Amino acid sequence: MSNTTSDLYQAMSTLRAVRRLRPDPIPDDVLQRILQAAAWAPTGGNVQPWRVVVVRDAQKKRAIGDLYRPQWGKYSVGSRKMLERMQGEPRAKQERMLAAADHLGEHMGTAPVLLVWCFNPNNMAITDADMSRPSVVGGGSVYLAVQNAQLACRAENVGCVLTTLLCYDEDAIKELLGIPDDWYTCGVMPIGYSVGGGHGPISRRPVSKLAFADTFGEGIDL
Amino acid sequence: MSNTTSDLYQAMSTLRAVRRLRPDPIPDDVLQRILQAAAWAPTGGNVQPWRVVVVRDAQKKRAIGDLYRPQWGKYSVGSRKMLERMQGEPRAKQERMLAAADHLGEHMGTAPVLLVWCFNPNNMAITDADMSRPSVVGGGSVYLAVQNAQLACRAENVGCVLTTLLCYDEDAIKELLGIPDDWYTCGVMPIGYSVGGGHGPISRRPVSKLAFADTFGEGIDL
Repeated sequence: MSNTTSDLYQAMSTLRAVRRLRPDPIPDDVLQRILQAAAWAPTGGNVQPWRVVVVRDAQKKRAIGDLYRPQWGKYSVGSRKMLERMQGEPRAKQERMLAAADHLGEHMGTAPVLLVWCFNPNNMAITDADMSRPSVVGGGSVYLAVQNAQLACRAENVGCVLTTLLCYDEDAIKELLGIPDDWYTCGVMPIGYSVGGGHGPISRRPVSKLAFADTFGEGIDL
Repeated sequence: MSNTTSDLYQAMSTLRAVRRLRPDPIPDDVLQRILQAAAWAPTGGNVQPWRVVVVRDAQKKRAIGDLYRPQWGKYSVGSRKMLERMQGEPRAKQERMLAAADHLGEHMGTAPVLLVWCFNPNNMAITDADMSRPSVVGGGSVYLAVQNAQLACRAENVGCVLTTLLCYDEDAIKELLGIPDDWYTCGVMPIGYSVGGGHGPISRRPVSKLAFADTFGEGIDL
């Protein structure tokens, strides 16, 4: 494995959700590299049917934070219920996550930058649009860019986390940011320097639970 | 900018679609690292509602290739029509892309590995499910993993390209690979060593066309 590979894998394996962000500004050159990383991502037909609104205006950030607070409040009821059925270290871990998420719920508006990811479905070939199950394919031309931006944040030691809860307030966000009728939002990503340790160890299923050999459910031996 | 950052950016900025793949096998340790990269990706609620079927069986690959050939044939009619309105270097570039895509259309079944990405919408909080515009948020819990896998391919010098055209044949693919009723497919990624130069320069819009300052359409000066 070359050095190049291991540096890339280092970023991926330590990209964790960072939810406690200091209000300190992100230098322009750092922000530029994060946005450039997103711009490099592949999209269907190389159409790049996404845009990102970089929100640094204090009043607009506050308005978005005010929309997020009650959405997180509502959503977190379920997360707290799940907690009741947990014990020991998994429960303690979940409690720490919820405390950090509650902090974000209160303070999203004071992150130095909110990245609001937009997409235009008219510029996408959504091959699963007419199926009876939920469509996801449109996401294939925007979330790859989002992941590039997250990995760049990691590499730049900038904390980040993606939330899709603000889709519930899409009309208000569109009005606030002047997003045209045929563009929509698919995520808001507060980014900034971390209050605590920031990025670090992550907890994920092993490959053996996620990848199968030739048949769904068939163990793969690598 | 640290060395870590520049290696990561090197991978991102040279991740191009590689459509002419040699049939030579991918060593197990390389494949393991590509799958591990996917496993590291964040997902909503850390649920990891995706799986990947690693298809190496010759008969199954051929069957998938036989499904892909006519789908590419149909889809490429539109791409060829666009060509008629193009001239000079953009046209020549598009013609080269189409020639490579035609090659993939004929030969997908002989790539050494086909990664078939699956997802389970029951395990996703799809916040835009009930909106009047196309839903994309489900993709936010699987395409980040797909992008990690693509970046790992790049770092390992393994060619790759994502196609979503086989969603049109989802029922056949599900039967072929034994995918359970409540799991669906959102992309097929042939991977393998390149016939030609493989990954390399990419052509993307500049950041100034993709990122806006506080208001959609407002230029950002970084």
